[in-house]
Amino acid sequence: MMKFNNIQRYRQVKNRYRGSIIVHPIMTGGLVPESVQRILFDEGWIGVGYSACFDCIEGRSSLVSKPPISDFLSDIAEFYGGDRAEHTFGCRAAQFAVMKMISDFVNREGGRDYAKIVLVDPLCHYTTAVAAEVAGLKIVEPPHSGYPEYKVKPEDFQLKIEEVKEEHGKLPGLIAVTHVEPYYGNMNPVEEIGKIAEEYEIPYMVNAAYTAGVMPVNMRDMHADFLTVSAHKSMASLGPLGFLVTNYEWAKKIFSQSKIITEWSGRAFGKKIPNIFGCSIGGIPLISAMYSFPYVAERIKRWSEELEKTRWFIEEMEKMDDVMLIGERPHRHHLLHFETPIFWEISKHHKRRGFFLADEMIRKGIVGLHRGMSKHVKLSVYGLRWDDVKAVRDAFYEIAERYIKEFKIDIS
Amino acid sequence: MMKFNNIQRYRQVKNRYRGSIIVHPIMTGGLVPESVQRILFDEGWIGVGYSACFDCIEGRSSLVSKPPISDFLSDIAEFYGGDRAEHTFGCRAAQFAVMKMISDFVNREGGRDYAKIVLVDPLCHYTTAVAAEVAGLKIVEPPHSGYPEYKVKPEDFQLKIEEVKEEHGKLPGLIAVTHVEPYYGNMNPVEEIGKIAEEYEIPYMVNAAYTAGVMPVNMRDMHADFLTVSAHKSMASLGPLGFLVTNYEWAKKIFSQSKIITEWSGRAFGKKIPNIFGCSIGGIPLISAMYSFPYVAERIKRWSEELEKTRWFIEEMEKMDDVMLIGERPHRHHLLHFETPIFWEISKHHKRRGFFLADEMIRKGIVGLHRGMSKHVKLSVYGLRWDDVKAVRDAFYEIAERYIKEFKIDIS
Repeated sequence: MMKFNNIQRYRQVKNRYRGSIIVHPIMTGGLVPESVQRILFDEGWIGVGYSACFDCIEGRSSLVSKPPISDFLSDIAEFYGGDRAEHTFGCRAAQFAVMKMISDFVNREGGRDYAKIVLVDPLCHYTTAVAAEVAGLKIVEPPHSGYPEYKVKPEDFQLKIEEVKEEHGKLPGLIAVTHVEPYYGNMNPVEEIGKIAEEYEIPYMVNAAYTAGVMPVNMRDMHADFLTVSAHKSMASLGPLGFLVTNYEWAKKIFSQSKIITEWSGRAFGKKIPNIFGCSIGGIPLISAMYSFPYVAERIKRWSEELEKTRWFIEEMEKMDDVMLIGERPHRHHLLHFETPIFWEISKHHKRRGFFLADEMIRKGIVGLHRGMSKHVKLSVYGLRWDDVKAVRDAFYEIAERYIKEFKIDIS
Repeated sequence: MMKFNNIQRYRQVKNRYRGSIIVHPIMTGGLVPESVQRILFDEGWIGVGYSACFDCIEGRSSLVSKPPISDFLSDIAEFYGGDRAEHTFGCRAAQFAVMKMISDFVNREGGRDYAKIVLVDPLCHYTTAVAAEVAGLKIVEPPHSGYPEYKVKPEDFQLKIEEVKEEHGKLPGLIAVTHVEPYYGNMNPVEEIGKIAEEYEIPYMVNAAYTAGVMPVNMRDMHADFLTVSAHKSMASLGPLGFLVTNYEWAKKIFSQSKIITEWSGRAFGKKIPNIFGCSIGGIPLISAMYSFPYVAERIKRWSEELEKTRWFIEEMEKMDDVMLIGERPHRHHLLHFETPIFWEISKHHKRRGFFLADEMIRKGIVGLHRGMSKHVKLSVYGLRWDDVKAVRDAFYEIAERYIKEFKIDIS
């Protein structure tokens, strides 16, 4: 029998970071505006698990008109330059839907020229690899340029296509490129790769998990057939929530409705979409994304200001001894990856070892550095007020100065 | 270019049912206690998409110790009589994980005696059928007894196994039974079917979406290898969230970690679990389930009171002319399905046709009847205060009386 006290303690859990400045690169685009938090609470949307399902008539959340989810999804599609959108259990589920559909498509009518292979960028997010793994697609990658910029070239995608063609006598079934990759915040040449995909007639997916909702993103300009989006990463929304946006051509295939008929009872589930598990549930994340949408549509217009802020911050960070941004220059995204030999050096003297840096930052009210890391630092100042951006910089400066002195580190 | 006003209107969306009495059978077990709603807001958990990911060190939400998610999942496993649990994107994703694993297992070492067939109960939830469809498993079903009880017999499962064995020379790869089915609220003979599964050595999944969290559920007693749970349906939690609980034996297989290695860059993602898309994200639903857990653990002890309330309500409803509960008697679950010829008759005279009933109930502050339905009514009074249960009964009575009079319906 379970101990009563053991269960009771879950009531006492506190949010240790309430009120902190958040700099975690997967979080800064997913901060929910205070007005939205307020309305989620005040309107009672967080009072029930199936928040949006009261007026579901057809049995799929994306078809619900009260609240206006079907309109919202149409607007999302248009907003990203597509024709149709479905919400999903995060961007990972959107990617899975694409890979699953491709996996089914290959070897069938219209798909015989394609192999069960997906060509991905060499710094794709792990969810892209895992989606391929689950869908039974093999991954191939072009190279990147390595340290310190890690850039990819469109022509290397073409070479890889030719290589696959030669080896398998077939084209890759899909090209999947991360718009901005999660390691260094590099923006991939998605338009150029899109043109190559178009030439070869290979279905093309762009994973915009880190961009759609923070900067202008248009899948038509990218020549993309599928855009995968993370609402909790970049659309000021609660998680888990993603969107899969596509064009009319592919919508029929990827959003095709359930065909299974149960053997004895003869039941069919015609409104359900198997690639998104039938219905992706009208939960609180979906409601939060709807409320945040006007805010998101506004904020992407200020992307150049955000970029300016980010570049200012890079300059300030690089004033510290040997601290250097890894990834492309000029930087075109708010995800920043610095190598920080000075903090690595400090960690060797510190009794908390590599943990000291995140710890000290938390003590200064700044949260989001990966615990245990000091040799490299990944962070984002996206959406922060200038005061807070400066506070983040000052915190790094102060920590460095304090320990250089304390441990008598030679920085000459 | 999108119209600005068009987007702005999402700010104005209201929850039409705030403060209503909720009787939707998929919602009554998913009502979030007010104290939990309050803390989600006050502690700032709804301030960021990745609510629980600040202190993620290993890259999977189920391994996070602050907040105590890994402990919580251990407690969930124990609570349901299993050894290990992972949280999932709803019960549907938990079911998919099971089906996917079975689909991979069949035809490999240890799985050669099994066919890509899943034996399901004939009133399983659509998500079971869709999960099979996505995982590439064929569905077979034993019969039910039909109108008015729709019951299934354990021996029919055995007959079906024998039938599959004869036809395919192999056993079904999985038996998947809905603990309480979603059409009539019948409790299936899961223990007896479990014994049969054990005898034949067929992996056995029980879908407890409608029961785990409202009544005592123990997968060991059911002889189940997998228990799938819906937190937003039955654990007083926000959605989408589910749990997949299993024993040590199967945990290794179903929660096996990613094996993919990216071709050129050689990256591996060893902590990620492909069957649940790597990591199921530490979002607000997970936090809400953690806070609600003490409440859920308490409320299941009062299940017999809930059943009493439900049975009282059935009696009261059946006092109306020809209204009759469909499904088993005595009824053992709060999901109720009545045939209501009197409301069907009224609908023929009413200008709103079948929509009148849900409309009228909403006007009386009661929400959750399926819009458009009047011949049958599905609802639940689970968790309602007695005052509210009586108010629901009275509302049905009043609507019937009013229109019998107004349309001069002959009820003799």
